[in-house]
Order: sequence, then structure tokens, then C-alpha cells
Amino acid sequence: MSKLRVGVIGATGMVGQNYIRLLDNHPWFEVVYTAASTKSAGKTYQEAVAGRWLMEESIPAHLKNVRVEDATNVKAAGEQCDLIFSAIETDKKTVRELEDLYASSGIPVVSNNSAHRHTSDVPMVIAEVNPHHLDIIEAQRKRFGNNKGFIVVKPNCSVQSYMTPVYALIKAGFPVSKMIISTMQAVSGAGYPGVASLDIVDNVVPYIGGEEEKSEIEPLKILGSIENGAFKNYDQIRISAHCNRVPVIDGHLACVSIEFEDAKPSVEETIEIWEGFSALPQELDLPFAPLQPIIYKKEQNRPQTRKDRNLDKAMAVSVGRLRDCNVFDYRFVGLSHNTVRGAAGGGILSAELAKAKGYLD
Amino acid sequence: MSKLRVGVIGATGMVGQNYIRLLDNHPWFEVVYTAASTKSAGKTYQEAVAGRWLMEESIPAHLKNVRVEDATNVKAAGEQCDLIFSAIETDKKTVRELEDLYASSGIPVVSNNSAHRHTSDVPMVIAEVNPHHLDIIEAQRKRFGNNKGFIVVKPNCSVQSYMTPVYALIKAGFPVSKMIISTMQAVSGAGYPGVASLDIVDNVVPYIGGEEEKSEIEPLKILGSIENGAFKNYDQIRISAHCNRVPVIDGHLACVSIEFEDAKPSVEETIEIWEGFSALPQELDLPFAPLQPIIYKKEQNRPQTRKDRNLDKAMAVSVGRLRDCNVFDYRFVGLSHNTVRGAAGGGILSAELAKAKGYLD
Amino acid sequence: MSKLRVGVIGATGMVGQNYIRLLDNHPWFEVVYTAASTKSAGKTYQEAVAGRWLMEESIPAHLKNVRVEDATNVKAAGEQCDLIFSAIETDKKTVRELEDLYASSGIPVVSNNSAHRHTSDVPMVIAEVNPHHLDIIEAQRKRFGNNKGFIVVKPNCSVQSYMTPVYALIKAGFPVSKMIISTMQAVSGAGYPGVASLDIVDNVVPYIGGEEEKSEIEPLKILGSIENGAFKNYDQIRISAHCNRVPVIDGHLACVSIEFEDAKPSVEETIEIWEGFSALPQELDLPFAPLQPIIYKKEQNRPQTRKDRNLDKAMAVSVGRLRDCNVFDYRFVGLSHNTVRGAAGGGILSAELAKAKGYLD
Amino acid sequence: MSKLRVGVIGATGMVGQNYIRLLDNHPWFEVVYTAASTKSAGKTYQEAVAGRWLMEESIPAHLKNVRVEDATNVKAAGEQCDLIFSAIETDKKTVRELEDLYASSGIPVVSNNSAHRHTSDVPMVIAEVNPHHLDIIEAQRKRFGNNKGFIVVKPNCSVQSYMTPVYALIKAGFPVSKMIISTMQAVSGAGYPGVASLDIVDNVVPYIGGEEEKSEIEPLKILGSIENGAFKNYDQIRISAHCNRVPVIDGHLACVSIEFEDAKPSVEETIEIWEGFSALPQELDLPFAPLQPIIYKKEQNRPQTRKDRNLDKAMAVSVGRLRDCNVFDYRFVGLSHNTVRGAAGGGILSAELAKAKGYLD
Repeated sequence: MSKLRVGVIGATGMVGQNYIRLLDNHPWFEVVYTAASTKSAGKTYQEAVAGRWLMEESIPAHLKNVRVEDATNVKAAGEQCDLIFSAIETDKKTVRELEDLYASSGIPVVSNNSAHRHTSDVPMVIAEVNPHHLDIIEAQRKRFGNNKGFIVVKPNCSVQSYMTPVYALIKAGFPVSKMIISTMQAVSGAGYPGVASLDIVDNVVPYIGGEEEKSEIEPLKILGSIENGAFKNYDQIRISAHCNRVPVIDGHLACVSIEFEDAKPSVEETIEIWEGFSALPQELDLPFAPLQPIIYKKEQNRPQTRKDRNLDKAMAVSVGRLRDCNVFDYRFVGLSHNTVRGAAGGGILSAELAKAKGYLD
Repeated sequence: MSKLRVGVIGATGMVGQNYIRLLDNHPWFEVVYTAASTKSAGKTYQEAVAGRWLMEESIPAHLKNVRVEDATNVKAAGEQCDLIFSAIETDKKTVRELEDLYASSGIPVVSNNSAHRHTSDVPMVIAEVNPHHLDIIEAQRKRFGNNKGFIVVKPNCSVQSYMTPVYALIKAGFPVSKMIISTMQAVSGAGYPGVASLDIVDNVVPYIGGEEEKSEIEPLKILGSIENGAFKNYDQIRISAHCNRVPVIDGHLACVSIEFEDAKPSVEETIEIWEGFSALPQELDLPFAPLQPIIYKKEQNRPQTRKDRNLDKAMAVSVGRLRDCNVFDYRFVGLSHNTVRGAAGGGILSAELAKAKGYLD
Repeated sequence: MSKLRVGVIGATGMVGQNYIRLLDNHPWFEVVYTAASTKSAGKTYQEAVAGRWLMEESIPAHLKNVRVEDATNVKAAGEQCDLIFSAIETDKKTVRELEDLYASSGIPVVSNNSAHRHTSDVPMVIAEVNPHHLDIIEAQRKRFGNNKGFIVVKPNCSVQSYMTPVYALIKAGFPVSKMIISTMQAVSGAGYPGVASLDIVDNVVPYIGGEEEKSEIEPLKILGSIENGAFKNYDQIRISAHCNRVPVIDGHLACVSIEFEDAKPSVEETIEIWEGFSALPQELDLPFAPLQPIIYKKEQNRPQTRKDRNLDKAMAVSVGRLRDCNVFDYRFVGLSHNTVRGAAGGGILSAELAKAKGYLD
Repeated sequence: MSKLRVGVIGATGMVGQNYIRLLDNHPWFEVVYTAASTKSAGKTYQEAVAGRWLMEESIPAHLKNVRVEDATNVKAAGEQCDLIFSAIETDKKTVRELEDLYASSGIPVVSNNSAHRHTSDVPMVIAEVNPHHLDIIEAQRKRFGNNKGFIVVKPNCSVQSYMTPVYALIKAGFPVSKMIISTMQAVSGAGYPGVASLDIVDNVVPYIGGEEEKSEIEPLKILGSIENGAFKNYDQIRISAHCNRVPVIDGHLACVSIEFEDAKPSVEETIEIWEGFSALPQELDLPFAPLQPIIYKKEQNRPQTRKDRNLDKAMAVSVGRLRDCNVFDYRFVGLSHNTVRGAAGGGILSAELAKAKGYLD
């Protein structure tokens, strides 16, 4: 099988760089095209990121001298790419219109941007939770007037750490009706330059603009159903989130209290449900799928951000400290890597899923 | 008025050092006596803390060459002191017996140790919340068989950040029935050497041994009543706590969701209640009392640990981000300085209260 | 004595805020005037710094509602102020011209900006090292054509930590001919937002733009002489600096190796010279002068940044670890607080010196 | 080729864990044996490290249930192992005697401990700098009275960052005569629990016990020659080191000023020498050998600790900022990973070298 030709739009920013880094040597996808703002267009990729390449790994050799295109040049992208990863960071209206233009030009788009997260026929995918949401692509293609283009987005970078374990419980027949969450989120979640060091060294900032709303609303769509070519939100759960920025580089950790709708599983059953949880990406053996999507840490002081964020290529969610809650049924801790599982890695896994389901043929 | 002669027992540890530091130039109290373990006894204070003096300020000059006594030498303490601050750090049974010995020898004891927190006639005091609990001293003195000794303790160092604002609401006629709390606690809360740097740099540890239990149970006694010379726990509130260690030096921050028993005040009323809250320490103008015990920060991203922990000599609790909760009634953020308000400073304020109420005459 | 009326130009930035904070309740100076860029002009001070007030202390009450003027409105400043602290942060040419305009309008200026550091008749003052450099004000006033205005600047924020102890040795008759320095500098030295957290959490950045050059050249002027109304650099010392950014909030620490021109003092003599060092600010008992400008820490692992940066109102330089060097004569460690001693506090001390010497009459 | 059977002595400590981690799936070596103190002996490896496993990776599955032996049981080790990695952490005398016992029992020992660093016939090896020092094994074997056992040690964990680049210059014909070094070292260098968080968050500690002496003396042996079966120190270089602990997890960075004995290479030549530097481990293509032992970073603000410590499996030394020094000839920055290149990884590379040279046959 020859690899699919992939473009990264917004390739010079931090999310774009992560796509470039993670797609290096990918078995199915090969980055052959990069695009960014007018300011970068025309430079080589290496020139365009000079002084702001943030990855530990070097720029992949075959991309150093690739010419960066203008992100608005949809025609060029269409000619050279089978798939686009969108990592654009600009105002939502511009992003929405541009991603629409790609899709209506017959180009599949997997996006990290939040612009289309609440568009009624755009799936917001955690590959292990709602892989069936890709089915809506058919409806989208009717709207876009072609049979190749589509838009798939990923949720906010902190959602994975608590939604994957909660979904596993719902799927096992134990619907959760109430959740109160406190997150402790890494500075990389704010991009670059992002959080000023004067605001975070020896400090906690108990506020991240827009984050609590996203944490509360996005799960409703992810758990939702498709009705008449549009998503209908799940309405059986209420979520309240406190979002905090803490001085760690990567990894979003969440303290979660949950109440079940009806009966609750025992502690042992719950851990079994989590450890046994497996979904379509595992079944399909997708390259970026973690072997075990949820890893339960038995030590009483885990998961810890730095020590557990990289589990299984930083794609696994780790949970721990499941115990009774004095107010709700249970409490636990969840952790996922925000720039891999919660961003570029999650986007790549969604693209792999789309490929496996035939949407990239 | 000549100053009361004060002793610090456990004077060489971190809490003891904080007592020494904060009592320097106190208008009512003068440290004239220090005691510690057998290992330190006989050395000068300066020698005893050599290589482990952790305060920014220097050792007060008049204490450098004071001879450190053995903490078990209750007789010497009784001869030289009108009041003892206990900052002993050893097993609970030993602490309990030693503090009993002081009190039964007629020596007033204000303790930072947790050993006596649940002794039925020992008040656990936040000076602005339950100053009337000192009334139980009469019952204690009967038990100890003298009319001078007593034991007063302070609660766990994180309790202040959420109990003071919640108490203000209860006092204003809005009882809170449920609370879910997530704390982000400073490394100084674990003493010295305490948390290893390899466990906390670029990391969050979602576990602090025994801390959640203390956070949930201690408030019940603090809010409790005195019946027949013993405390009876308040039983109208249920608390669930997630306690986390984060890489900050000082300051315990808490994200709090609360549900009211009955009607709830409006957001504006709640802020008014907090800003207007004042209690006996303020009325008596005690030296360590903050002018305003609860400071509401109006900026949407405050309080922040490093920026707000030192408000009003590090004795004020700061709160902020009061807003609706999707699951309970309200959410807010509370912050207090763990080694000052939550430890030595809180102990000194309790001693001032005892003095003002005549228990040190 | 009524207080001098003081203005802070560039009052909304981080250095300006530090001036506002440190001048609160100053015995000689009262801030009555603030100015900033056109963008802030017309707002109240409180409005102008909304969301970017970085100090732990609150905005002084009497300044909250003061109207911020335009920094280019020299006339207004002249009418309302006896002295201006310049904390402007813009391009050097603009700063130079604006400060010239203030001075030629008869307004004394004490500046934190680097623009005038190498102007031939502008003194760059560390109050304990070269207080006599203020004598050049007479020459300046001739140039500016009035007998009130002048410009005095302070050196780069890291220079204090090694120049004060080295100057003390030179003054005691032991000229130092060679120095190799490595600094570990706080993020506050880069202003706000300054260093991105992604660049400094769990990291060291071995480069600070322009800093090494300043560290090497500025001392030559500070140690220089006045000849014919202009400064002549000291040419008896060669300095090589490695400047590093480390994850600390405040405090610049320097590891220093020194070689003496001729004979060297013994270790004991050196410590005596440092501990005994006192200069004009101490003699004049200036309000911001540290009692002892150089504090020698005897513990083998001091000074440490967080533990020693606040010594004597953060105005003292602490040194330690004096020992033989295998290559030069001695090695030692120096530390000073960069935003107090090295910035606003140092500027205030220079202004106090100017006042005491009669230049503000 | 079947793999050599390897034992790790001191397997439960941090260095031992790193050996276990890094040797997992090694092409030549297989860990079949672990030993530790009497306290751990008899437990499974998993039990022995419960609660103190510090690696990000899990314990290799095949070692979880291996029985930990007593480190003093030399006989068992001899029966089961072809090679021992010593990661014992106890007093030097005990280590020295125990390692001697292994070697005299015919067991090859590669040690991370400092006990034997200055034993006259024990080579202290940086595989790219002094691979020929292994030749002294013949002399050792005579002393130990067998033809299999030997002891090889690695130097202190910070030496690599500056010695490898300096050696490359010496080898190229540009002997360096003087060096002044300031290191900024990671907390992992102190082991676990090691540095207390209260000592390092928002702080720099300008002292590491014994580290400066090691940094100055060990290079002399590494650069030394073998005469009559004993090492003779190189005496053409004088080194002065300032060693600092900074709040980073891994990676020791050094700021270095160097003076050449005679002529100096140009900046361009120097960079060419470094980039072209290659040695026996590269020639032999040893599994742990970095492709390029010295990587020159051209960006003006690199190498940086977090961003560059992991270059080439954390085995490459990165250098940067080569520039003129005002006092000596040149200045530069060097960085290496202290727990990999500077500890277990360096030890494994030395063992590979010994194997390739026939000393493990």
C-alpha cells in the first residue's frame, strides 16, 4: 500500500509541529505538504519555524526544505494531498470558512480547531468513544456537494482524561448522571508563547478562558446520537468543571466525582470495566491506538502527571484512586497527555479510523 | 502590660521555626523558652537548627544562644512559661500524652499537632469561626484538675481556605449541605524534607496521606456544638475532598462546589456576606487578626497561589470566581497560606483569643 | 519636611508597578503623578493596569483613581512633579529623546531604562559603589541649560550581585584584574509577559539577549572616573559573563571567579572587608539603604535564590562560598534581588542619594 | 549470538532502576539477576521496588517476579551472570570491598559508584574519550588472580558535558590548559528522595557536596596515561568548577570558559572538530553509541536542558554558543543527560566496549 499524501495546515504553530513530529515515519500517512499564514508562505519549512521549533525531536529531514504554502491556497492542497490536518490558529469564523472551503473542494479535513466543534453535522471524535459518529460524513458530503471531502474535529484537550473512563462505564450499563471535575492542566495546553512564566512558576491559576464551558458541553455531543443527519446532544448527564493551570509542561489531570443514574458497579467491577475496555481502534489495530485505552494504576498516589502522561506512546488514559465519595457515588483521578492524546495524536487516530472505515478511499 | 512568657515545644522543626519567626516582636507574647527532642536538648537554639533553618528571616538575635530544653521537661516549662505553643512532630500517642502532661501541670497549650483534634473536650479553633469553643476550657480544667492548664488545637492546614467562606454563609442564614472540594496544596504542607523534588517538579501528585479524611471530618467538629462538656459534631453537611500536591512553595488553594440546604443567596449577596464577614478576632482587634478575614477578588483569574497567599500578613483567606455550578448551587475558589494562616499564625491568633477571653490570666 | 512630589513615567509596566509599590509610604517621596503610553492615557491608574497588575500588594488606595497622563506630556509632569522615575519600555532612541526632554525642561529623572547608560555625562549609579558620580550632574545641567534637571540611570539588574563585592575589594586596596561570571537569572528580569513558561519550566536557557555584553561593559563605567565632564571607563579589569535564565521568580545569582592584580587578601580578610563594607548611603542613613550592603552567609550552601533574595528589604547583596579557585585566586557566589535592588529599589536609593546631596532642592 | 547474562547489583535504587529500564531489549545483554540490600533480598523485584519505582516505563515483565538476591552473595552472582552492573549506594569502603570481591571471584564489574574512581588500576571510562584505558584490565586481572574479573567505573555524572568537547579539541591538536566551569545540575543527580522540594522550587542551590572536587580531579585521570599498570594523571590542564543545583528533573548543563595551551582553532574549525568527532564506540557501532557524540546546536539560545537532553537516546552531548571569551580564549555551553549518558547509559556503553574488545569472552 502506498502511503496517503497528507498536508498540515497551520504547520508552523505548536499543534502543527506536533503533527509534523508524530507523523514522521507513520505507516499510512506521509506529510508532503505544509501551509501556514501569508507571513510564512514561500519560506522553507525550516525557515518558517526558525527560532520557534518547540519539539524535542529535530525537524524531519525530508520536510526541512519543503516550501510552505499559503493556507488559503485550497487548490494547491487539493492537488497534492489526500487528507489535510488542520492546526490553524486564528479567529473561529475564518477557520470555519476555510475548513468548509477545503471540504467543499473535496478535501478531507481532520481539525484540531474548535471552530466546527458545534456544527450540527461535524463529528467531534474520541476514537474509542464515538467512532460511529463518522457515519455522519455521508450527510456532510451531501451538504458539501462532493463525495470526498469532510470535516472531522477532536474535542478540547482535557476532555479525554475523564470522558473515556466515564464512557466505559456508560457503555457497560452504568450511566453516570452527575460529574464534578477539577482539572490541573499543563502549560502546553495554552500553546506558545502561551502562559507567561511569571504567571505560573510557584503558582496555580484557577482559570482558563472558555475551558470550563468546553469541558461541560463537548461531552454531550460526543455521547450524542445522530438524528436526521445532525447530532443530538446526550441529555442524561450534568457536568460541572473547575479548570486550573498548574506548573507542568504536559499532561492534564482531573479529579472527578461521579454519581450514577441508577445502580452503581462495585469498585472491583469498575476497575474491571476500565481495564477491559476496548473499542474499534483496538479492534482495527490502528497504528496510533493504545493497546489498552484505559490503564488503571493501583498505587494509591497515581496517576501522576509527569510519571504517567507518556503511557503507551502518550495515547493511553490513566486512571487511579477509585474510591467512595462522601457526596456522590465515586471519586477517581484521570490523566491524559494533552498535546498527544488530546491534540495531534488524537487527530491522527481519528484520521486512521476514517481511513479504516473507507472514508479516505 | 508586660508580655506573657511563651515557650515553643518542637522549636527546631519547620512549624516551630515559623512560631519563632512570627512571634518575633509580638506585642503580647515573648518567646523565652524553646524545647525539642533529646537530640537537640542542651544545644543553643542556633546550634540546634544549624543547616536546617528554613525561614527567610534570620533567627531572632535574642534566641540564638538560648539553651534548647528537652520537650519532656514539663517542670522547667511550667516554671518559665505562661503559655506553650506545641509544634512537636512525633507519633500521636506520645504527643497526646505529653500535651496532657503540660495541661495537667497547669500549663496552657496551643498545639499545631493533630493528636488532640478529636479529643472530646479539646476545641479545634479557627478564631473567626468558632471562638466560642474556647468556653469548653472550663470543662477541660476540671478534667485536668487545675485552673490554668488547657489544650487548644488548630485544624489541618487546608481547612481554612474553604471553611471560613462556607461558615460565613451558614452564619448569614444559608446553611450549606453538600460540598465537593479539590485542593492544590503547597509542598511546605509536608514539612521538611517532606516532598522529594523528583516527585513534584513538573508534576502533580493526586494524593496526600490522611489529608482527605481530615478535610472532611474536621469541619464537622469546628461547626459543632458543646453539649455536657464535650463537642458534638455538626451533621448537616457532607464534604468530599480530593487533595493534590502541586509544585508551589506555600499556599493551599481549593476549588469548591457547594449546595445549600434551602434557599441560596444571590451571587451579589454571597459576595456581600463574604466581604462583610467579621468575627470576634476583628472585634477584639487581636494583633494577628486580618482586618477583613475573607477578601473577595473580583478579577476572573484570582485568587492565585503565589500572588494572593500573603494578603494581610498571610492571615486573610481570599476567595474568587463565585459562579453557578451545573450540578450544585455555586462554585468558587478559596486560598489560604498554609504555614501562616493554616499553622503557626492560626495558632498565635487562637492564643491571642484565649488571652483576650481571660484564659491566660 | 513635606514630601517631594514624584511622578512615575511608564507606570503601568512591571518596573513602573514596582516603583508604585515600593514608594508607597516612602518617608521622603510621594507619588502624585503617573504617565504611560497614549493607550493608557486618560484612564484611571486602576483601569490602566486592569488584568496586568503583577504585584502581591494591592494598588495603593490613593493612586487607584489618579488619571494616567501621556508620557510625552512633559509640561504636565513639570508642573506637578519634583522628580520623575522613568520606567518606560520602548525603543532606546525614543526613551533617550524623551528623557532628554524631561531633563532639559528642568525635571530630574532617575531612569531604569538602558537608553542613557552609555551617555558620556549620565551617571550609572550603584549607590554604594559610585555615589560620587552624581557630581557630574553639574556638567549635565550646563548641557541641558537649566539648574534643576538631570538624568541618573541604574545599571543592568544583574550587575549588583557581583560588582558590589568586587568593588569592596578594590576599595580596600585589592584591585581585581580578571573575572569570569556565570549568572542564573530570574524570569522577572525579562518583564511581563517575558519568558514563556514552555521555555523555562524544567529548563535552563543559557542565553539572554544583550545581557552578557551589559554585564561586561557596564562595570567599567561604574568603576570609571570623571574627566572634563565625561566618564572615562576603568580599564584595569576584564570581565567575561555567561548569562543563564533559570526557573525562579526573583533573584539573580552569580558564580564568580576572580583574579587580583597584585596581592590577594586572605579568605578571612576578604570576608572582613565584605562584612565591614559601608558607604555613603549607610552613612547618610538613606531610607532604602540596607544596614549592611554586603551580607556574608557562612553556611556552605548559601546564598540561595529564594531564601536570601529578600535580605534587608531585598536591598542587601548576599555573598558566600568564598574559596580558592584552581585557575584564578578566588571563587564566590553573589546574589541580589533583581526587581528591587537591581531595579526600582536601586533607582529609589539613587534618588534618595541625589536628594541627600542637594540635587533635588 | 546468545545474549550475555547480566546482573544488576543495587537494582532497587534509582541508578539500578535505570539499568533495568535501559537494558530492556538490549541486543547483547539480558538482565537475569538482581541483587540489593539484605532488606530487599528474598522479595520479588516488583515487591522490592513497590512505592519507589521511579521510571516512566513499567518494570519489564520478565523481571517482575524475579527473586532479589543479597548483594553480598557473590557466589550466586558468579554462577548466574557473565557481567555485573554495580549500582550500589552505600559507604565507599563497603562498595570498594564488595566490588573487589566480585572481581577477584572472576566476575566483570561495570560500576556507577565513585568508590573505585581513584584506584590506580581501575579505568574511569567515557567510551569516546579513553576507550584505550580498558587495556589496564590485564594488569587488574593479575592483581585479582584470575583472567575473567575486572572493575571498570564511570566518572561523575556532570563530567561528560564538558570533557567530551574539550577532549575532542585536545585530540585535534589543540590542548586546553585552563577551564572555568559553572554547572546547572538536575535534581535526579542526587538520587531519590534526594533534594527536598522546599530546597529547590523557585530556588538555586549553589552547592553540591563533593561535586566540584570530582569535576576538577576526575578529568585528569580520564585524560591520563597508563604507566606500569597504573594510571598517571594528565597534568596539562587546570579546572575550576562551580556546581549548582537548579529546578530541572534531568540534564546537567555547563557554562565553560577555556584557554588553550598554544594556538587556538578558529570558531569554524572548533565547530568542525566537534561535529566531526567520532571515536571507537562509533567505529564499532556499539548499540548505545550515539551516531554523533557531540552535536553542535547553531541556534544562539541552545542547548537547553529540557529541549536537548534527550538527543540520540539521551547519549549525545550537545554544545552551543561557542564565542570569544573576554578573559580566556573561548566560551561555550555543554549539556548531557545525567542519568543516561552520565550514569546507566554510560555504564552500558562501557560494557559494550569491553565486550567488543574481547574482555567479556
